[in-house]
Amino acid sequence: MKLSYPATAEDYRARARARLPRFLFDYLDGGATDEQTLRANETEWDGIKLRQRVLIDVDQVDTTSTLAGETCDMPVVLAPLGLAGMMARRGEVQAARSAEAAGIPFTLSTVGICPVEEVQTSVSRAAWFQLYMIRDRARIEALLDKAWAAGCRTLVFTVDLPQPGMRHRDFRNGLSSSGARAKALKAVQLLSRPGWLWDVAVRGGPLNFGNLSDVVPNAGDLDAFKSWIDAQFDPTVTWADIEWLRRHWKGTLLLKGILDGEDARQAVSVGADGIIVSNHGGRQLDGVASGASKLPEIVAAVGSETELLVDGGIRSGVDIFRALALGARGVMIGRPWAWALAGGGEAGLNNLLASLQQELRLAMTLTGVTRIADIGTDQLDRNSNPEPGKLGEQQ
Amino acid sequence: MKLSYPATAEDYRARARARLPRFLFDYLDGGATDEQTLRANETEWDGIKLRQRVLIDVDQVDTTSTLAGETCDMPVVLAPLGLAGMMARRGEVQAARSAEAAGIPFTLSTVGICPVEEVQTSVSRAAWFQLYMIRDRARIEALLDKAWAAGCRTLVFTVDLPQPGMRHRDFRNGLSSSGARAKALKAVQLLSRPGWLWDVAVRGGPLNFGNLSDVVPNAGDLDAFKSWIDAQFDPTVTWADIEWLRRHWKGTLLLKGILDGEDARQAVSVGADGIIVSNHGGRQLDGVASGASKLPEIVAAVGSETELLVDGGIRSGVDIFRALALGARGVMIGRPWAWALAGGGEAGLNNLLASLQQELRLAMTLTGVTRIADIGTDQLDRNSNPEPGKLGEQQ
Amino acid sequence: MKLSYPATAEDYRARARARLPRFLFDYLDGGATDEQTLRANETEWDGIKLRQRVLIDVDQVDTTSTLAGETCDMPVVLAPLGLAGMMARRGEVQAARSAEAAGIPFTLSTVGICPVEEVQTSVSRAAWFQLYMIRDRARIEALLDKAWAAGCRTLVFTVDLPQPGMRHRDFRNGLSSSGARAKALKAVQLLSRPGWLWDVAVRGGPLNFGNLSDVVPNAGDLDAFKSWIDAQFDPTVTWADIEWLRRHWKGTLLLKGILDGEDARQAVSVGADGIIVSNHGGRQLDGVASGASKLPEIVAAVGSETELLVDGGIRSGVDIFRALALGARGVMIGRPWAWALAGGGEAGLNNLLASLQQELRLAMTLTGVTRIADIGTDQLDRNSNPEPGKLGEQQ
Amino acid sequence: MKLSYPATAEDYRARARARLPRFLFDYLDGGATDEQTLRANETEWDGIKLRQRVLIDVDQVDTTSTLAGETCDMPVVLAPLGLAGMMARRGEVQAARSAEAAGIPFTLSTVGICPVEEVQTSVSRAAWFQLYMIRDRARIEALLDKAWAAGCRTLVFTVDLPQPGMRHRDFRNGLSSSGARAKALKAVQLLSRPGWLWDVAVRGGPLNFGNLSDVVPNAGDLDAFKSWIDAQFDPTVTWADIEWLRRHWKGTLLLKGILDGEDARQAVSVGADGIIVSNHGGRQLDGVASGASKLPEIVAAVGSETELLVDGGIRSGVDIFRALALGARGVMIGRPWAWALAGGGEAGLNNLLASLQQELRLAMTLTGVTRIADIGTDQLDRNSNPEPGKLGEQQ
Ligand SMILES: Cc1cc2nc3c(=O)[nH]c(=O)nc-3n(C[C@H](O)[C@H](O)[C@H](O)COP(=O)(O)O)c2cc1C
Ligand SMILES: Cc1cc2nc3c(=O)[nH]c(=O)nc-3n(C[C@H](O)[C@H](O)[C@H](O)COP(=O)(O)O)c2cc1C
Ligand SMILES: Cc1cc2nc3c(=O)[nH]c(=O)nc-3n(C[C@H](O)[C@H](O)[C@H](O)COP(=O)(O)O)c2cc1C
Ligand SMILES: Cc1cc2nc3c(=O)[nH]c(=O)nc-3n(C[C@H](O)[C@H](O)[C@H](O)COP(=O)(O)O)c2cc1C
Repeated sequence: MKLSYPATAEDYRARARARLPRFLFDYLDGGATDEQTLRANETEWDGIKLRQRVLIDVDQVDTTSTLAGETCDMPVVLAPLGLAGMMARRGEVQAARSAEAAGIPFTLSTVGICPVEEVQTSVSRAAWFQLYMIRDRARIEALLDKAWAAGCRTLVFTVDLPQPGMRHRDFRNGLSSSGARAKALKAVQLLSRPGWLWDVAVRGGPLNFGNLSDVVPNAGDLDAFKSWIDAQFDPTVTWADIEWLRRHWKGTLLLKGILDGEDARQAVSVGADGIIVSNHGGRQLDGVASGASKLPEIVAAVGSETELLVDGGIRSGVDIFRALALGARGVMIGRPWAWALAGGGEAGLNNLLASLQQELRLAMTLTGVTRIADIGTDQLDRNSNPEPGKLGEQQ
Repeated sequence: MKLSYPATAEDYRARARARLPRFLFDYLDGGATDEQTLRANETEWDGIKLRQRVLIDVDQVDTTSTLAGETCDMPVVLAPLGLAGMMARRGEVQAARSAEAAGIPFTLSTVGICPVEEVQTSVSRAAWFQLYMIRDRARIEALLDKAWAAGCRTLVFTVDLPQPGMRHRDFRNGLSSSGARAKALKAVQLLSRPGWLWDVAVRGGPLNFGNLSDVVPNAGDLDAFKSWIDAQFDPTVTWADIEWLRRHWKGTLLLKGILDGEDARQAVSVGADGIIVSNHGGRQLDGVASGASKLPEIVAAVGSETELLVDGGIRSGVDIFRALALGARGVMIGRPWAWALAGGGEAGLNNLLASLQQELRLAMTLTGVTRIADIGTDQLDRNSNPEPGKLGEQQ
Repeated sequence: MKLSYPATAEDYRARARARLPRFLFDYLDGGATDEQTLRANETEWDGIKLRQRVLIDVDQVDTTSTLAGETCDMPVVLAPLGLAGMMARRGEVQAARSAEAAGIPFTLSTVGICPVEEVQTSVSRAAWFQLYMIRDRARIEALLDKAWAAGCRTLVFTVDLPQPGMRHRDFRNGLSSSGARAKALKAVQLLSRPGWLWDVAVRGGPLNFGNLSDVVPNAGDLDAFKSWIDAQFDPTVTWADIEWLRRHWKGTLLLKGILDGEDARQAVSVGADGIIVSNHGGRQLDGVASGASKLPEIVAAVGSETELLVDGGIRSGVDIFRALALGARGVMIGRPWAWALAGGGEAGLNNLLASLQQELRLAMTLTGVTRIADIGTDQLDRNSNPEPGKLGEQQ
Repeated sequence: MKLSYPATAEDYRARARARLPRFLFDYLDGGATDEQTLRANETEWDGIKLRQRVLIDVDQVDTTSTLAGETCDMPVVLAPLGLAGMMARRGEVQAARSAEAAGIPFTLSTVGICPVEEVQTSVSRAAWFQLYMIRDRARIEALLDKAWAAGCRTLVFTVDLPQPGMRHRDFRNGLSSSGARAKALKAVQLLSRPGWLWDVAVRGGPLNFGNLSDVVPNAGDLDAFKSWIDAQFDPTVTWADIEWLRRHWKGTLLLKGILDGEDARQAVSVGADGIIVSNHGGRQLDGVASGASKLPEIVAAVGSETELLVDGGIRSGVDIFRALALGARGVMIGRPWAWALAGGGEAGLNNLLASLQQELRLAMTLTGVTRIADIGTDQLDRNSNPEPGKLGEQQ
């Protein structure tokens, strides 16, 4: 393994697999049902062909951009990942530091390990705060106040998880089962990763849900967590509740988990400041289309009226460029940052982010664009025909 | 193997393979000729993309439905499988109990191991009864009387098997050969599965065709069975015979094995109460299209006039949802129930059925539909384009 | 291996690989350049979807047919294969006997091992005779006279081999090289197959080109053979020469190796009695389309004026049915018969032919057609859509 | 390995992999980012289907052609490959000799190992000279003078590398890293290839950049090389600079790395004598289309006004033919020549070139074309339909 340097998100994934207990790696890596949407997320960016342009002065290529009113060194945000703090010691703190170093926002999940205060005292850049709606509205208000007090100004409200998806890998690993056998199974997996045990579990505690620690006592106990979600996540939330939220949050409000043109229009009309086109990384409804394939529909519907981010399967600087060329203002990356953190620590994540930026810059260089704002459909290749049998026809 | 819990139909398949003698697993698993249609059945549901919808109140999602006039906890029926009783001890009885627990119908095959009376005395829910037409009509009448007397009210008349298909796996395993070598081959396979031998063959007898035990003496002797089928199955049956059947069966009459719009119209006009769109699980004519790809044509032809079920390759709750969205009223599942039974016993099948229902409920939750009757084309995503090269075009 | 019975062409291929020296298996198995056309031949029949039809009286299904004026038990011909006599002892004799037993024609190659007289004295059914044009026309005339005298009445004139194709497998095996190293390489391969050596090489001689034995002395010496072909095969042959041939052959004249509509029309206009649509089993120009994909164009061009056969990648009775449904009158099979002969002897070939007929009969049964002449486009499924993403659109 | 003869580019690739230190093989073999464009280059020629034509007099097939005013035995040029001299001892000299023997041009890279004078003193045929624009224009002028003095008359100006692409394999191998670990890693790889070490590194020196030896001291030190490129390659070059170049080079000027119709038109209007349609072998911007799929657009744009070559993924004589049929006048091959040289020495390259010519001749023979100039769209098969599901539709 160590006979080579990790270069890509996939390389870090391989290292993460080697370091994490299986049930944790699978929790991070997996998707819903047959993981078709997960695979589509990862492969369908490939279909977006770019134009190679030459002999344009590209000495001054600039990846700087503005997302949700905030200047970013590149139009990339670390997506909220529940339990991320179990992938590396105080994982969200490391990620927030790495994001700050790279000049981009970090998003803290409602169900992260490190509480928002812990994260914010270790960086000066304000994190984005992600919210799941739970039945107890008073608790929501308290949570929002805490995030605001800690300095968060951008709220990411996730709308695609009225209930957790059907993640068979977790079931196979006994995460949904209690009893002796499931416990034994997890113990075997843990013992085969002594490095992680010592570094993260023993020395990196407490491993509970920082933002909810008064409600859900112990994140290590994933079953209790699951029951809590089943009981507390609120499937009665409707568009009307967004107005309530709008009133309670003075900062920027982004809706995460919109995948349909109709919903996108609705989001704009209820006053969201932006939308994150997402299928939750293929973890919710298997069988929905990839972000790559839905983005054009949503750009057509509301692209001129609101700020669009997209996530799901973004794995390289070229993918970032593709999303921008299709009309997104920026992207979120989810698993890759956790893979890099788990597989290479904070330095690993720093390297990955630097590599993504370098690759984005290169894509701009080779398509002849020097500013992020200039990336658009003119950089898409509409004359290439990937269907081999029709190649001869174009002439 | 036992280091994980089985979660999906495929997981149970792996366990069934490990438990069953090879020729039996292959008999269950295989299809005709090159198994192209079998593979198409299993993969083409994937192409039906769904719409992820958000912020709809989905607190009360209800999977209850009516099939053939019968209330079901979900719109799923266990398909008739010949010889199923060899996959587990008194297999059809276990399956009927499991179906009853899940609140769905079980269909007993003409060539099942357990006789209809044995099945019906162990459950209170009436099984559906599947019929193959055999040359001796008096025997048919007797069979129908027996089924009726046992309490069956829904007759599934299978029309796609005038002769058994070309299943090369069976031939390779010597099922179609007699003589010492074929016997030795089977013996070797049996001896490598002592668990099955003891549980099913020794303690689970008699292993003959319960409903036909006076005609075909011993199900273990698959060759005799095959000769009997070749001689007795009636390839002269035509639409005219359906009228005869119609007269002899007072209950609900479903035709199973319709795959063509023209035949579907004919089925309606001869008075069938419903149709099961099916290619017999890819076991008859290899090279015909999958149920997934034929369903729209048949819905267009007769969807408004009759009740449509579909089978072939349904493996998850998402697949069930897809079939309903395309216009089916319900689905049958074949191999999955036998895999679960063979691989995990009655408890395994209970788990699988619970998982399918949970997944169906989740698909409803995430598409924003609360009642089965509301699932329809509005849940199909017509704006996603799986051809990567054309992604850029939509904008 | 012997723990199962061989059922399909592919099963016999595996056995042939185990029995034949590698260079011989590769010679039989391989194609030109990257073998793209070879693969297309084998896979593109799969795309032709059939209609499953039910409740038609199919008690009397008849596979009998007429090819080139000759009654056949099924519309299948054994294709000419050069060197086939090296695959099994006196291979062409065994194949001719097997064909006679199956009630179908056998075609003897110009460059077969057994001379036409040897073949014809062992069967009573007249073989078809395949001709390559060689520079020396007097020799051609002598060859035609010999074939006629032996009883052949159908001449298959092959037009797609003005020069042998670029078969890299043969080159890799040293077939195109002389010298000690190439000899050693072949010797190693031969010694690893002592069964073949004893049965075919030692006891099955002489291994020379029966029909050309006065010109090319030793078929074992493939290099000498190759030089002879390079020197003697006549690349100057044009349509005008077909008239010469027409005059010298009183029997039926079929042109083999037509793959283009324009050439097909020309073939009809110069007076050929029939055409065999073929790309020489993917052994000549890699990059041309499969027979399956070219057949419709040629049917449209000359289908009503001449008799069309097709070959290339026919591997099952379903494939035979597909070719007929597209408009062919019959098919040739090449590699499969040699695989069966090499892997299972004459009995193996008998089995394979019986299986093909049984599968063709079954395809007729399940599409509701009772006579070969009734197979046509009405059996093609034009309403199925294999592109998953478009499934929802049909409704 | 040596149990067979190498026949194809791929065969030589396997041998090169066995002989070269891994970082060198990966440098040669790899592409940018996810290597999607590299794979597209290699697979998309396959989609171009050819017409098999018969009974045309093909006794006199001639592969001779004119490229950039120069007679060639076949329309193929060895592409410029930086560092090629590290693949075999004095690699560019061997390649130039082999090209001369095959009657085709060899292109020397700016960053080749052997200086242009060394190459030109060992052959009598003038090499083509490839230029990268570097910031110091005086050095460029000196370089051009040196090339002209050595006899070069065709200048290949490469426009698709304002900066080197993101080649993760090089990063993984530590080529972009300095320090002890990276050195150790390379040392391990070198020591596992003693044959290469002795032959190329020890006896084949000096291993520096012949044409730039006064600037970049040691090619073995790839890091220094990379820094030099980053600093010296000039990303400010625009179309205006082509005019400057046009004035300084009296010979033929070809622009290499055009992949877009708009750029092609611009190239013609600034006075280039020809264009090489190229994506730099998939080593620059991953996500651009293959040469095969872009060629038709560029032929349509400027095919009648300028001379077009294409490269990227040409691996066989059939691929060469396809490029010509789509409208190119000739092709460049890159990796294949270095694979053959590394894996089989000068004799290996001679064999590969002879094989390509033979295969091209055969493609002409089997499509019925006798002169290169006659190859065109009439040899493309527009009636074949590779989409299996639509096969039946054509009739
Ligand atoms: C392990 C894991 C946990 C996640 N937890 C959350 C979460 O707590 N809140 C949320 O809005 N999204 C969550 N997501 C979804 C991500 O924010 C993001 O949408 C998705 O990971 C993007 O796809 P990618 O992983 O392919 O980049 C999670 C995703 C993963 C993989
Ligand atoms: C082993 C086996 C036996 C079957 N026996 C019967 C049968 O006796 N009667 C019948 O109508 N269908 C029979 N079928 C077809 C099934 O009822 C059903 O149509 C098919 O299995 C559905 O496809 P699936 O297995 O992919 O779910 C059988 C299928 C299998 C796999
Ligand atoms: C080993 C071999 C030898 C062949 N020799 C001849 C031959 O001598 N004459 C001829 O017309 N065709 C010859 N062919 C082509 C076959 O007649 C036939 O067109 C082809 O094999 C059909 O494709 P299939 O092998 O996929 O069935 C040969 C094919 C093979 C595989
Ligand atoms: C190892 C390597 C080095 C290359 N160096 C150069 C170079 O110095 N200058 C240049 O114009 N192109 C260079 N190229 C690109 C080639 O000239 C050519 O465009 C490409 O290799 C064609 O694709 P192919 O390798 O698939 O045939 C290089 C390519 C490779 C693989």
